Amino acid sequence: RVNGDRLWDSLMDMAKIGPGIAGGNNRQTLTDADAQGRSLFKKWCDDAGLTMGVDRMGTMFATRPGTDPDALPVYVGSHLDTQPTGGKYDGVLGVLAALEVVRTMNDLGIKTKHPVVVTNWTNEEGARFAPAMLASGVFAGVHSLDFAYNRRDPEGNLFGDELKRIGWVGDEEVGARKMHAYFEYHIEQGPILEAEEKQIGVVTHCQGLWWLEFTLTGKEAHTGSTPMNLRVNAGLAMARILEMVQDVAMGEQPGAVGGVGQVFFSPNSRNVLPGKVVFTVDIRSPDKEKLDRMRAKIEAKAPEITDALGVGCSIEAIGHFEPITFDPKLVTSVRDAAERLGYSHMNIISGAGHDACWAAKVAPATMVMCPCVGGLSHNEAEEISKEWAMAGADVLFHAVVETAEI
Amino acid sequence: RVNGDRLWDSLMDMAKIGPGIAGGNNRQTLTDADAQGRSLFKKWCDDAGLTMGVDRMGTMFATRPGTDPDALPVYVGSHLDTQPTGGKYDGVLGVLAALEVVRTMNDLGIKTKHPVVVTNWTNEEGARFAPAMLASGVFAGVHSLDFAYNRRDPEGNLFGDELKRIGWVGDEEVGARKMHAYFEYHIEQGPILEAEEKQIGVVTHCQGLWWLEFTLTGKEAHTGSTPMNLRVNAGLAMARILEMVQDVAMGEQPGAVGGVGQVFFSPNSRNVLPGKVVFTVDIRSPDKEKLDRMRAKIEAKAPEITDALGVGCSIEAIGHFEPITFDPKLVTSVRDAAERLGYSHMNIISGAGHDACWAAKVAPATMVMCPCVGGLSHNEAEEISKEWAMAGADVLFHAVVETAEI
Ligand SMILES: NC(=O)NCCC(=O)O
Ligand SMILES: NC(=O)NCCC(=O)O
Repeated sequence: RVNGDRLWDSLMDMAKIGPGIAGGNNRQTLTDADAQGRSLFKKWCDDAGLTMGVDRMGTMFATRPGTDPDALPVYVGSHLDTQPTGGKYDGVLGVLAALEVVRTMNDLGIKTKHPVVVTNWTNEEGARFAPAMLASGVFAGVHSLDFAYNRRDPEGNLFGDELKRIGWVGDEEVGARKMHAYFEYHIEQGPILEAEEKQIGVVTHCQGLWWLEFTLTGKEAHTGSTPMNLRVNAGLAMARILEMVQDVAMGEQPGAVGGVGQVFFSPNSRNVLPGKVVFTVDIRSPDKEKLDRMRAKIEAKAPEITDALGVGCSIEAIGHFEPITFDPKLVTSVRDAAERLGYSHMNIISGAGHDACWAAKVAPATMVMCPCVGGLSHNEAEEISKEWAMAGADVLFHAVVETAEI
Repeated sequence: RVNGDRLWDSLMDMAKIGPGIAGGNNRQTLTDADAQGRSLFKKWCDDAGLTMGVDRMGTMFATRPGTDPDALPVYVGSHLDTQPTGGKYDGVLGVLAALEVVRTMNDLGIKTKHPVVVTNWTNEEGARFAPAMLASGVFAGVHSLDFAYNRRDPEGNLFGDELKRIGWVGDEEVGARKMHAYFEYHIEQGPILEAEEKQIGVVTHCQGLWWLEFTLTGKEAHTGSTPMNLRVNAGLAMARILEMVQDVAMGEQPGAVGGVGQVFFSPNSRNVLPGKVVFTVDIRSPDKEKLDRMRAKIEAKAPEITDALGVGCSIEAIGHFEPITFDPKLVTSVRDAAERLGYSHMNIISGAGHDACWAAKVAPATMVMCPCVGGLSHNEAEEISKEWAMAGADVLFHAVVETAEI
């Protein structure tokens, strides 16, 4: 079993870096806080005797050697970056539990055939630079390095420039590493495990996603002196599209979600009808047909709404991953570990995207989940108990050691 | 008649200060650009032999003396501040035409019994600091100086601090001046005069306004892993309220408008359902009953919408003026001047709020309007012709000289 207190202390130490405004964290990717978090993580890896490699996306790979020089490593990780108003566990738990796994292996003097590599992927959240899971996407060959370097944050800063600025451009070619297996431990970010009173989620699938960025073009005009019938109201069109997205998602229940988290009005002045409204629709389903049907419905209905108002509408797909089925052998290894350790468990589909989804493109991969209070995540109030954190780390430890072969 | 070329040159010179991004202006109140605009205007007033007074709200009063030491002055003015993506004429035309009136009086050696005071009111737009028409509101006793000084821009800067920073805190008590009459010349900012092919709008009324600032409280949560039925979706509530405001305004046609120009999502991240959405509803009507009925309907229906979604809703009235009836004698003087000068004219109701509305609380007041292309305003593409500008300035000149008495 892992050392739950040590894991918890590391979580609390990391949470001191990039504090939020309400008890959580704002440690967005490639900020100074991210750099500080990376340094602390590197120190811990050094202390655990691991060897750090960094690729050109800034992803950190800390290796505990295996006994067979020809055996490919088992990768275990997640991400240390957070949402602007993020929690202390989303991603961080997965990286620090991976570290706890090798710390425990060190404590117990366990030697494995395959090396074990603790991994911190750059820009999983996608909050500052869309899309999410950017570094693992480049690793899996889904995006080019050039595409990634040219992503911009809302202030117009380039990903490539910011990576350089914080000093974490590594020399490894992205994706050059080959994996024997990839494990990721994460909080559920949803309400199911807590409601079902299960300690462990055995993650069999991950739902797919489309991010559709809408740019609506209206006519910037005075709110007072522009008669109702002469308005070209991009704000009203946005409102109708939000309602339509809600309808489309409700029409595909169960097993589908749709919503909008980001809206920009321009010029965003109280007495000016917006000339431009930009927002991103986030739709997801574990069922590829449902997912693509939702996209098709939304893209068919949006122009009807905007045409009726005379508003211009362009839609760009700025984020996408298909639904994933995780590796059956690794899934079984996770389930067996939970069973062996006496933890209650159930199969679960990940509602959020994870680096494991891209890793699954290039290696056998799976995930372990623990509950979180009220299913809350992407919220500073995100919470888990030390016992939950530890149970998942125990399961991760067993599955990783089994896969890395003693 | 005024000198149309001189007026136009002054307009173009002022438009060089605080250029926009698409041919218009961004000279928001109390910015460095506003300070530059004030300096240029002051220089022009000095050149015209006027004496500058400044009150504690930074409003500029440039006096051309009268012949009777006991006669109260005739005030003529508008504002030099603009929207963030504003036009070259909104407000500016009124100030520079007032200056052109006194320049023409100087040219012609006209002496009047009443002094004439060219006026530049601070923060008419309300884009940076709500509410609009702030300085004239304090002048009319509608707001306290303390209230005004404590308005904040979106970055959190205080009005009082910014006024000090740009060096335009005057020593005059606000509202101490007494007015014989107040005239304001402005572009229509609506489509009626152009459609009716009239050169002059004789402004008989101004419609009233409510700005209702909504703060919706949802539950910040992951867009992917939060099932539809567990969402507390403040963004969706905002969308439904926008649609409801549209319905309420359409239900009061003709003679009513309603819309939303400003929306803030928080944390405004693509994969986070917003925990907070703040937006301002702008409703107007020349009919006080209609205006207040719209407000009552909106305030009754909004909680139904938010309650159904479990979203919290608070509403604050952050801007208000009642419909105004302008002074019949001054209105007649404007109409007679247009008639005398041979300009086509019609009665019109101002769709936008103006400093004249607050001045009307403390003095006989009225306005003159000229058309603008496509009725477009609060848009960098706002446009008028030199002929339109000049016709209104001629009418203003005649009405002002008549009221100031030769
Ligand atoms: N786990 C997580 O929140 N990832 C961010 C990408 C997503 O929105 O699913
Ligand atoms: N004229 C003008 O645009 N004033 C700003 C106040 C308003 O929104 O009516």
